[in-house]
Amino acid sequence: MQRMTQLFTKTRKTAPADEVAMNAQLLIRAGYVHKEMAGVYSYLPLGYRVLQNIKKIVNVEMEKLGSSEIIMSTLQHKENWTVTDRWSDANVDVWFKSKLKNDTEVGFGWSHEEPITNLMKSHIESYKDLPVYVHQFQNKLRNETRAKSGIMRCREFVMKDMYSYSLNEDEHMKFYNATTEAYMNVYRALGLGQITYVTSASGGVFTDKFSHEFQTVCDAGEDIIYVHKTAGYAINEEVYNPETLAKMNATETDFDKKKAAEVGNIFTFGTGKCEQMGLVFKDNAGVSQPVFLGSYGIGITRLMGVLVEVFADERGLVWPTNVAPYTLHVVGLSDDPKVGETIAAIESAGISTLYDDRDVSAGAKFADADLLGMPYRITLGKKFVENGEIELKIRATGEEKLVTLEQLIAAVRA
Amino acid sequence: MQRMTQLFTKTRKTAPADEVAMNAQLLIRAGYVHKEMAGVYSYLPLGYRVLQNIKKIVNVEMEKLGSSEIIMSTLQHKENWTVTDRWSDANVDVWFKSKLKNDTEVGFGWSHEEPITNLMKSHIESYKDLPVYVHQFQNKLRNETRAKSGIMRCREFVMKDMYSYSLNEDEHMKFYNATTEAYMNVYRALGLGQITYVTSASGGVFTDKFSHEFQTVCDAGEDIIYVHKTAGYAINEEVYNPETLAKMNATETDFDKKKAAEVGNIFTFGTGKCEQMGLVFKDNAGVSQPVFLGSYGIGITRLMGVLVEVFADERGLVWPTNVAPYTLHVVGLSDDPKVGETIAAIESAGISTLYDDRDVSAGAKFADADLLGMPYRITLGKKFVENGEIELKIRATGEEKLVTLEQLIAAVRA
Repeated sequence: MQRMTQLFTKTRKTAPADEVAMNAQLLIRAGYVHKEMAGVYSYLPLGYRVLQNIKKIVNVEMEKLGSSEIIMSTLQHKENWTVTDRWSDANVDVWFKSKLKNDTEVGFGWSHEEPITNLMKSHIESYKDLPVYVHQFQNKLRNETRAKSGIMRCREFVMKDMYSYSLNEDEHMKFYNATTEAYMNVYRALGLGQITYVTSASGGVFTDKFSHEFQTVCDAGEDIIYVHKTAGYAINEEVYNPETLAKMNATETDFDKKKAAEVGNIFTFGTGKCEQMGLVFKDNAGVSQPVFLGSYGIGITRLMGVLVEVFADERGLVWPTNVAPYTLHVVGLSDDPKVGETIAAIESAGISTLYDDRDVSAGAKFADADLLGMPYRITLGKKFVENGEIELKIRATGEEKLVTLEQLIAAVRA
Repeated sequence: MQRMTQLFTKTRKTAPADEVAMNAQLLIRAGYVHKEMAGVYSYLPLGYRVLQNIKKIVNVEMEKLGSSEIIMSTLQHKENWTVTDRWSDANVDVWFKSKLKNDTEVGFGWSHEEPITNLMKSHIESYKDLPVYVHQFQNKLRNETRAKSGIMRCREFVMKDMYSYSLNEDEHMKFYNATTEAYMNVYRALGLGQITYVTSASGGVFTDKFSHEFQTVCDAGEDIIYVHKTAGYAINEEVYNPETLAKMNATETDFDKKKAAEVGNIFTFGTGKCEQMGLVFKDNAGVSQPVFLGSYGIGITRLMGVLVEVFADERGLVWPTNVAPYTLHVVGLSDDPKVGETIAAIESAGISTLYDDRDVSAGAKFADADLLGMPYRITLGKKFVENGEIELKIRATGEEKLVTLEQLIAAVRA
């Protein structure tokens, strides 16, 4: 149980004037994050717990795919990137760079295909060593010109990036397709399944021989997608043209134009990068072949921002139960020992609780419970002490009812 | 169970020629880490598991102290550091710096007193809000001139840094002393308790009104301490002088000179930094007072390096059970289904296993088991299939014995 008197963060009525994004406004007001500068946020106890919960959900799916977790360095060796021509600012415009004391240039990791491919040269020799799947939850640094979407587009952000090294395109495509499904499992687990679409992407700095984006319909998104009214798919603005419509046997009237946020992307690099970097394997005839590379990203902090944008309402944050910092928000309005005993019983049923034990008005507690957004709220006051009735409120729907302790536990676990 | 055929890392007979530190040589040979450049390492699956295990042990102690986990940004706002005069390279010589697109200078976090103190200005107003304790496991970047100690002194490393904000020196000292004990609990849990000393430190870039180091006797250490032969304390080289000896009522002959590695440090900042940064609280008379600051660090990656240096032998790594990537290394020398069934039984007893199912010689498997350093090794071969006898070897002592499955589980759990 976390007592609010022991939580150092305070809620506030207004967000900083320079913060234009709704997600960051609410997260700052609720004390989940602190803005260090435009596009750079620190994550305070409640925000950190949300991030950890999202990571866990993503990690389960990556492990099911057979991927191993590693952690690469932020500091980047120039030579890894010159060989693929991604060091120059002309080719990659988001580098942060600095220098060692001896004047050697170093970069700060904005993505990790090159260093991971380089390290694989120490570990992949033969077709027997393939495939290899690795992923990490890594702090990326990108020198973005524009950073106005709160935690959805940052100069520093947490990304789950995964890399696949395969024998050939066939083996790659099996994993690529399995990853597509695994990503959708993540979005479904987060309650975003119905509004998230796999779309064909166009390039950017990544090779796009074969690549897809995962787009979640969201007013705060920076992208535009066209969602088919009935057929359950969507088309990215970049490729929404007569040729694509003809291929899909559809017309413009079949689609709704929507704002969307990219919550994941998957790329087929092919053999090009491994050829450039010299990552080869001996096939079963003893002939050297370049390894086939794929890369797969989910912006963890961005996903947290999208959850805020999609689920929050005018009263504050609304978290899905599996990412909420705590499942139950207890508004304590009595000093009776029954309050503590009841919370202990709830916790021993495996339900995590945030207990508002502060010396402030009931109204202030209710307002903060709405702002903080735990999925369930109960009030333990005079009525509870007298007759054991617990007032339960569901944050997302506003539904309120009187329940017993047993009913509460059953309802929250359902 | 982790099959070695599914682990992408390979062991190697020799370390890279440019790697002079024993810890990094072994960790690279065993596939735990990859060297990106001098003082910069990536952590591969086995190494990542060790880091996570060390973090867990440290985190338990920090939570017992009442500290909340957060994560600050790497990117640093110049203004947070100019106000305390720690921005200039003349005053702090380990900064990495870069620029935003609009030419604004940014730094990369080498420590976090300033940004955390700044964020506390949004959350601390009254004496009722104190004390506040926060910690993080954060990637620090330091532009070290010299980086020759493997993962023990890096340009990029993981640090557990904790910060305490107290009403006054009394409240601070209670926490400072509790932290000293918590740190010793960490070293004891890692098997370093007997060779780790709390010593009085001298400055560096930190204010040293009252500060201590935790020094572990270790030939690879960069520091010198003088260990009292019988009294269980040690003195740092910087303050090993006639005055100190007189104060301790000791003479030079009482001490052994030892190399040591600093595995932790704790600092009393006092009120100075909060005065500079404007972090004040209203006391119970309504008068503004500066907050009293302490900071507390444990280098997580350095600690991993020290564990290697202290416990490894000529055959390879030796891990304490609670940080080992897996508890048990199974050398599989038979395809009999009994092997898989036995591993399943071991795992269901809660013992994590690394299973060498590779198609290589028994000798190569034994050598790699020694190199990789899991605390317990068993061999499941012909003898096991025939009569159920399991050969158990303790990595640290070399002790070997024949055991039953029940005896094995009991021995490993002990």
